[in-house]
Amino acid sequence: MNSKKSNIYADYAATTPINSSVAKRMCEIGEIAYGNPSSLHSKGLEAAAILKESRREVAGLLGAHERDIIFTAGGTESVNLALFGVVRPILKKKRKVHLIVSTIEHAAVLNAAKELQSEGAEISYLPVDEQGLVSPKDVFMLIKPHTALISIIYANNEIGTVQPIAEIAKGLRKINKERQAAGLSAVLLHTDACQAAGYLELNTQKLGVDLMTLNGGKIYGPRQFGILYVKKDLVLDPIIFGGGQERGLRSGTENVAAAAGFALALKLVQKNRSKECKRLQKIQQYFLSKLQKEISGVVLNGPLPGSQRLPNNINISIKERDGESMVIYLDAAGILCSTGSACSTAFSEPSHVILAISHQSLDRAKSSLRFSFGNATTKKDIDHILSLLKNIT
Amino acid sequence: MNSKKSNIYADYAATTPINSSVAKRMCEIGEIAYGNPSSLHSKGLEAAAILKESRREVAGLLGAHERDIIFTAGGTESVNLALFGVVRPILKKKRKVHLIVSTIEHAAVLNAAKELQSEGAEISYLPVDEQGLVSPKDVFMLIKPHTALISIIYANNEIGTVQPIAEIAKGLRKINKERQAAGLSAVLLHTDACQAAGYLELNTQKLGVDLMTLNGGKIYGPRQFGILYVKKDLVLDPIIFGGGQERGLRSGTENVAAAAGFALALKLVQKNRSKECKRLQKIQQYFLSKLQKEISGVVLNGPLPGSQRLPNNINISIKERDGESMVIYLDAAGILCSTGSACSTAFSEPSHVILAISHQSLDRAKSSLRFSFGNATTKKDIDHILSLLKNIT
Repeated sequence: MNSKKSNIYADYAATTPINSSVAKRMCEIGEIAYGNPSSLHSKGLEAAAILKESRREVAGLLGAHERDIIFTAGGTESVNLALFGVVRPILKKKRKVHLIVSTIEHAAVLNAAKELQSEGAEISYLPVDEQGLVSPKDVFMLIKPHTALISIIYANNEIGTVQPIAEIAKGLRKINKERQAAGLSAVLLHTDACQAAGYLELNTQKLGVDLMTLNGGKIYGPRQFGILYVKKDLVLDPIIFGGGQERGLRSGTENVAAAAGFALALKLVQKNRSKECKRLQKIQQYFLSKLQKEISGVVLNGPLPGSQRLPNNINISIKERDGESMVIYLDAAGILCSTGSACSTAFSEPSHVILAISHQSLDRAKSSLRFSFGNATTKKDIDHILSLLKNIT
Repeated sequence: MNSKKSNIYADYAATTPINSSVAKRMCEIGEIAYGNPSSLHSKGLEAAAILKESRREVAGLLGAHERDIIFTAGGTESVNLALFGVVRPILKKKRKVHLIVSTIEHAAVLNAAKELQSEGAEISYLPVDEQGLVSPKDVFMLIKPHTALISIIYANNEIGTVQPIAEIAKGLRKINKERQAAGLSAVLLHTDACQAAGYLELNTQKLGVDLMTLNGGKIYGPRQFGILYVKKDLVLDPIIFGGGQERGLRSGTENVAAAAGFALALKLVQKNRSKECKRLQKIQQYFLSKLQKEISGVVLNGPLPGSQRLPNNINISIKERDGESMVIYLDAAGILCSTGSACSTAFSEPSHVILAISHQSLDRAKSSLRFSFGNATTKKDIDHILSLLKNIT
């Protein structure tokens, strides 16, 4: 079998290796700027200045104001802050509140929604079509007078489906005008953009979202670090209370080095976005056409390569094969990929995403394989993956 | 004025510089072990193994089981998990619940308690004496049939007062036996040990606590990373929901490098603990005696050096002086210290800790200066600080 060196990492959707210049920046800043940004002295001010500059950089990249960027400890935390932050204040006032989420959200959204339901919120699950796409019409139809928030994943982590977030935001603006006239509060739109970062438009003005989650671990940046974009003037409840850092929305001494690393990582993926998308889309198309030609029983999960699919994702089901076994076989041969999402510790459960797009086909869910590519992936890697896949099919 | 190089950092209670071998370990692991610990393939297993080994190391250092160590994104988060985790499940059942916290807790405990109060919990604030000490008797007197949790800071972050945690835990065990016989649920004990780590006993068996918070940023370790020790079989509600990592108590892809860094940092401070305590206590005693001899109007806040005070903390008030102005003057001269806690962004508020020990003396709170020392502090530094303090007094 291949030695460790020849491993082909095809699981960038689970986590990305850290960019070496990001790692270097983080190590340098971590060593030097160790002050507490809340300290009055020069070491504190130095740290506060780096934090401020990082926030400014991130805001600039997202077309946002500095004030709108809340640094958090990861994507899951950001999602939780968005959902609990909007819904709990309404529950506290003992008022009815309704939340809409798609059926193919990440576990962070689904489980935060479930918790909110147990606290008294009403949840509607937005169906998706066979490509995993939500329909803006369906979204709007689900809106009730007491709807407070819609949360839709920008690009799905398992099958790469890209949702029409800008279109939904546009329709929502119209609806919110009517609601305003009727004395109803606006419906907010949150998108989990963790997988989208690096491949899709992240300008919050163009997207028109109210809340957006990003994390470092998917953009060659710091692990357990992320942001929540919070549109100007939106008032949220925090989920973590204490010293009042991050405008009161995330207490705890800030991770200054990670903030600087995140800003750099985001800058780098945004800078390379267009080129990298083209490069990976070629690889994606090549991989898919070969898979369909050379391997029998292959079904693509999610849309065909194009604007409705992330350029770095191929998710297939192979008839009469077991996904986990294939992952383990490929791993032994030096190919690192996954079946379903890695972001859950519940291995044995079949993918809720594949079930949602396949009329709950357990066979299709259990026979799925996800390859997610990134900055080190080459056509040669694809040929190697294909040759191994042929062995087991 | 002194150049940057000759700065004397005397604000270790606000945040510690990272230990260079910890930084090296984190950078190395961050670069190599980038897999998602939940991934089935070898990169995932590699990350999972490091995480497991780090947890084992931490558990060993605390006399705990691996299962009892929950990695979190910092001390504030751990405290929030402890308080919300215990109290919210009871509130959800619409049952009365009572929480006891000392008046000199860190903002994380005080503000989490305040939030719980707004959610329906009843809070009692445990008074402290003029040294900042709580009395076990007072603690026990406050217990009600529906008391669920007591949270007391092990060593205060501002004035260094060390609380009799083991004694309280011992008394509580007796009370809990009686409660059990009476069909009442046990009262749990949480301690925020962030400042204690490195200086005090952290063996959870010896301490007898049910929950204990530690963080990396105070032990020359990773920033925005910590643990919550959760005694075997205790069931808590999470505050962050998602993929179910950390036994369901802290969802989100784990920061493997930080976990390894935290384990090493804790190991190093524990290893040096006895020697470092003696060394710093000498410095502390020398500093205090000189302060009292050479500077007029000095009042020590907190207990005299000894077993009731952290060996690295000196907090004084100087009659008719302004704390913030002194910090800024000393900073300009290359001495980095603080007035009150840095862990709060509300600068202008007088220290609630000094107020609590001084019959609410605003003068004493506003004229306070905290020097907190660490591994680089020398007697020469103290002489330099003293010479500068003489200038302004």
